[in-house]
Amino acid sequence: MQALMQDRPLTLPHIFHRAERQFHDKRIVTTTLRGEVESTYGEWASRVRRLATVLDELGVPEGARVATFGWNTQRHLELYFGVPCTGRVLHTLNIRLFAEQVAYIAEHAADDVVFVDRSLLPVLWPVADQLTTVRYFVVLDDGADSEIPDDPRIRDYEDLLAAAEPFRGRFEITDENAAAAMCYTSGTTGQPKGVVYSHRSTVLHSLVSLTVDAVGLSERDVMLPVVPMFHVNAWGLPYSAVFAGTSIVFPGPAMQPEALVSMLERHRVTTTAGVPTIWMGMLPLLGEHDLSSLRVVVGGGAAIPTALSEGWREAIGIPITQAWGMTETSPLASVASPRSHHDGLDAEALIEVRSTQGQAAPLVELRIVDMDTGQEQPWDGATPGELQAAGPWIASSYYGDEGRDAFTSDGWLRTGDVATMDEHGFVRLVDRTKDLVKSGGEWISSVELENHIMAHENVAEAAVIAKSDPKWTERPVACVVAEPGSGLTSEQVLDHLRERVAKWWLPDEVWFVDELPKTSTGKFSKKTLRERLLD
Amino acid sequence: MQALMQDRPLTLPHIFHRAERQFHDKRIVTTTLRGEVESTYGEWASRVRRLATVLDELGVPEGARVATFGWNTQRHLELYFGVPCTGRVLHTLNIRLFAEQVAYIAEHAADDVVFVDRSLLPVLWPVADQLTTVRYFVVLDDGADSEIPDDPRIRDYEDLLAAAEPFRGRFEITDENAAAAMCYTSGTTGQPKGVVYSHRSTVLHSLVSLTVDAVGLSERDVMLPVVPMFHVNAWGLPYSAVFAGTSIVFPGPAMQPEALVSMLERHRVTTTAGVPTIWMGMLPLLGEHDLSSLRVVVGGGAAIPTALSEGWREAIGIPITQAWGMTETSPLASVASPRSHHDGLDAEALIEVRSTQGQAAPLVELRIVDMDTGQEQPWDGATPGELQAAGPWIASSYYGDEGRDAFTSDGWLRTGDVATMDEHGFVRLVDRTKDLVKSGGEWISSVELENHIMAHENVAEAAVIAKSDPKWTERPVACVVAEPGSGLTSEQVLDHLRERVAKWWLPDEVWFVDELPKTSTGKFSKKTLRERLLD
Ligand SMILES: Nc1ncnc2c1ncn2[C@@H]1O[C@H](COP(=O)(O)OP(=O)(O)OP(=O)(O)O)[C@@H](O)[C@H]1O
Ligand SMILES: Nc1ncnc2c1ncn2[C@@H]1O[C@H](COP(=O)(O)OP(=O)(O)OP(=O)(O)O)[C@@H](O)[C@H]1O
Ligand SMILES: [Mg+2]
Ligand SMILES: [Mg+2]
Repeated sequence: MQALMQDRPLTLPHIFHRAERQFHDKRIVTTTLRGEVESTYGEWASRVRRLATVLDELGVPEGARVATFGWNTQRHLELYFGVPCTGRVLHTLNIRLFAEQVAYIAEHAADDVVFVDRSLLPVLWPVADQLTTVRYFVVLDDGADSEIPDDPRIRDYEDLLAAAEPFRGRFEITDENAAAAMCYTSGTTGQPKGVVYSHRSTVLHSLVSLTVDAVGLSERDVMLPVVPMFHVNAWGLPYSAVFAGTSIVFPGPAMQPEALVSMLERHRVTTTAGVPTIWMGMLPLLGEHDLSSLRVVVGGGAAIPTALSEGWREAIGIPITQAWGMTETSPLASVASPRSHHDGLDAEALIEVRSTQGQAAPLVELRIVDMDTGQEQPWDGATPGELQAAGPWIASSYYGDEGRDAFTSDGWLRTGDVATMDEHGFVRLVDRTKDLVKSGGEWISSVELENHIMAHENVAEAAVIAKSDPKWTERPVACVVAEPGSGLTSEQVLDHLRERVAKWWLPDEVWFVDELPKTSTGKFSKKTLRERLLD
Repeated sequence: MQALMQDRPLTLPHIFHRAERQFHDKRIVTTTLRGEVESTYGEWASRVRRLATVLDELGVPEGARVATFGWNTQRHLELYFGVPCTGRVLHTLNIRLFAEQVAYIAEHAADDVVFVDRSLLPVLWPVADQLTTVRYFVVLDDGADSEIPDDPRIRDYEDLLAAAEPFRGRFEITDENAAAAMCYTSGTTGQPKGVVYSHRSTVLHSLVSLTVDAVGLSERDVMLPVVPMFHVNAWGLPYSAVFAGTSIVFPGPAMQPEALVSMLERHRVTTTAGVPTIWMGMLPLLGEHDLSSLRVVVGGGAAIPTALSEGWREAIGIPITQAWGMTETSPLASVASPRSHHDGLDAEALIEVRSTQGQAAPLVELRIVDMDTGQEQPWDGATPGELQAAGPWIASSYYGDEGRDAFTSDGWLRTGDVATMDEHGFVRLVDRTKDLVKSGGEWISSVELENHIMAHENVAEAAVIAKSDPKWTERPVACVVAEPGSGLTSEQVLDHLRERVAKWWLPDEVWFVDELPKTSTGKFSKKTLRERLLD
């Protein structure tokens, strides 16, 4: 029997028109090279309407990819809606990649137009001719003095907007499964692969971030997305914010810890999100600022070292809330806020809970699977398995049908992460399949070793990688960045571990390095470490 | 361009399996005639699995309507999931209707089986033979001593469950637009009409109740649904609670104010919801109880008199949060929690905000339309129009294609309510199209008059209806229930109004009555009033 409900697709125009009418006077602040610029949802919406006309005038076909190469700004948010609400596909390029990688990705996606911040033009322009499908480079002038090439493909964003009549009707997308946006994985473990989000997946994902047990974004929040808008759509938070009517503070290029802390304080920010390296950089500054407005600090993209989260908690009263996700999962898949069954736990135990990757968000399903037999593993908090995910905002395949082995025959995503799950479904990531250390037939968790090492007061950063071993197949090696001037020794590191892990987990060697190589999204790049150290 | 996201339908089995695994130890309490019974989601889930087998063994076909005739209990929640998760359609019958009306509705829906609380059997059994499509009456023994007829159609719920093997697999519904549940409108203005909800609409609606700016239900809440499970699925709250893992306290037949207040206090309830008559009954008791655990008291189904909401606020510190909806809207359509732009308003102005029906929930769209021209009206807080609604959980038609004129040619629901909307989309209901008083070509809001009259200290209840008038077409008449012993006079009522409304709004007459007739869902029945008084 069919139901008798209205057939209303879940599409971004709903979020746009809702915000335009209900939240027109809410604030949007952007830090630019010329200082902070204040605006409102109302002004933003009327610019989105002009942008719609601009895209028509540039002759961008339906379904074509419109790329962005920019900081977190209001203009970027205009593209976030103007592009998909008119049936095109937003493609956010990662500004931290090598230009050649950017060119590879833009070619792969066959981008039709690129919108680029003027301050980033010098990064992109050298490879412009390799972007063979791109017809226009539209420059968003952020006050940088970078030279603007005299080239027929160059256009100025503000000129185009100023000349365009605003689209006056209602944006309509009839197929909720149409592509809205695409993003490439960050390339920590391999070549970046393209993930294509739908209107439906984006709306559902945005909605779940408004639920209390996920991020709980509301109209009363002030949100500062530190996570870049090219990094899985800033974890979807800009879409969620517009859905809820949340005020937004965009940091623009001001990504230095001092600048960020000052914005959090001055704008009474309640909600912020970013990768651990960002929170690490800000930690020493917290004491000097009034951050009492903060309600939740979301950390993800890589494991949050316990010491870091506790450092925040000691400094400002709230820990970092860990979330886990991937480009392939839109990305919000699980959040580690303690549940009522954790009430009454002591401080130590609560730290343990917060160090997990949390419980699956609504509409997401997670399971762990034995890597050899493919058997589903019990949720006993001990047995590890490859983490697999299903749900309406989880990828079913990659663009161009690459990487087919990332999907199981029953349609689940193989995440490449290795985890245990407890009886309530709390996930603990113990490794990535490509980083696992297999010693004498048993797995050693590099993540757990790293966590313990990083808890040592004289350790700044640490990563554990596998070294091949004739007897044990593989043995762990710790790569450690010592706090300057601490005189930390290998023996001290190993002594510290001896009290905390089984003897056969102890790294065979401790290598001191000046810094750990990072990927374009700020994660430790073990791939690079292995290449450098094991050759 | 199509997106590359997994094609996962939005269905109730997701909510069920999530709760079964993640929240198995959360509490469900039910008040029965034999006292309070404690259980857990885990036990509940295993009973749902048995129920699945029972439905098969009773030979209930896919898509068949399975009716319930019961109080708010855990068993009712078993049916809420067991029926739709196995592809049947849950049909909640209103236990407060006359038996003949119940028979009409059950026949109309062609119910296949009815699950009935033993204490309610005496209400239903007299019309059993009129339920010609019903093959079985399954009795849920709640400890009442009502006689169980010796009839081949009678079965005992617990016997059936005990004899059934639990279904061991995963419930699968492949079509998210399949019917999950149906409910008839309450018949305040006309014949009850059937609304058919889908899995998709129910999942989306449940999710939105978890968002902060709607009800914000979370795992940490304890929810007591006072609103009956036959009244638009208790406003969807049981589905939301299971989605979030919220503990639930079911009042069963203990619907007396004293019993309810005691449950709220003893179980540290955080969230509750019901119609104004319920909150009215509890108001005098509030002072004697510790209700500090309450986070939100939702009122809806009829306007919340300001005096009532303020009475609660004075007694326990939080006002009643008004929500507006209909059987046709699943029902959550708007919620009146103050937004950040209301900050800084004085107490009077805040009371005004709370007396509106609030702002559209995510995914819901509202508009007001001139009743004569069909023109969309401005959101100026003054111009009234018929309120119309669109969204994925709003009805597109009624069962049996009745009442077609309730839907516009562009597919919106005509709500039959008359409202203004302000510049932020806050809705203020001023009347129902069928209750409007049209005097000298101008509308008079019966709702506004009632609100003022009920704010008088010597008024217990009031309703305003239209009386036909040779000169003005219609003129308002106030029907008032005075506080016992207050000696309230017509002149006092009119004097009170004179200071508050335009002169031509003053009712021509004030009629004192002993009580106002109520409908089966506890609303003032102006239909009955008109019949009684105007004949
Ligand atoms: N909270 C977290 N704790 C630990 N690891 C995390 C967390 N959040 C994300 N990750 C890691 O990040 C991965 C997802 O990152 P992303 O999609 O940006 O690309 P990548 O996996 O780093 O790169 P690629 O797949 O291209 O090699 C997850 O699979 C997981 O390994
Ligand atoms: N917060 C509220 N304030 C004022 N009225 C409300 C509120 N919530 C609901 N209502 C009224 O209740 C109506 C919906 O009620 P319901 O669907 O239960 O059936 P009914 O409209 O009373 O009966 P029928 O349509 O069968 O005559 C709305 O159309 C509105 O008139
Ligand atoms: Mg990856
Ligand atoms: Mg109605």
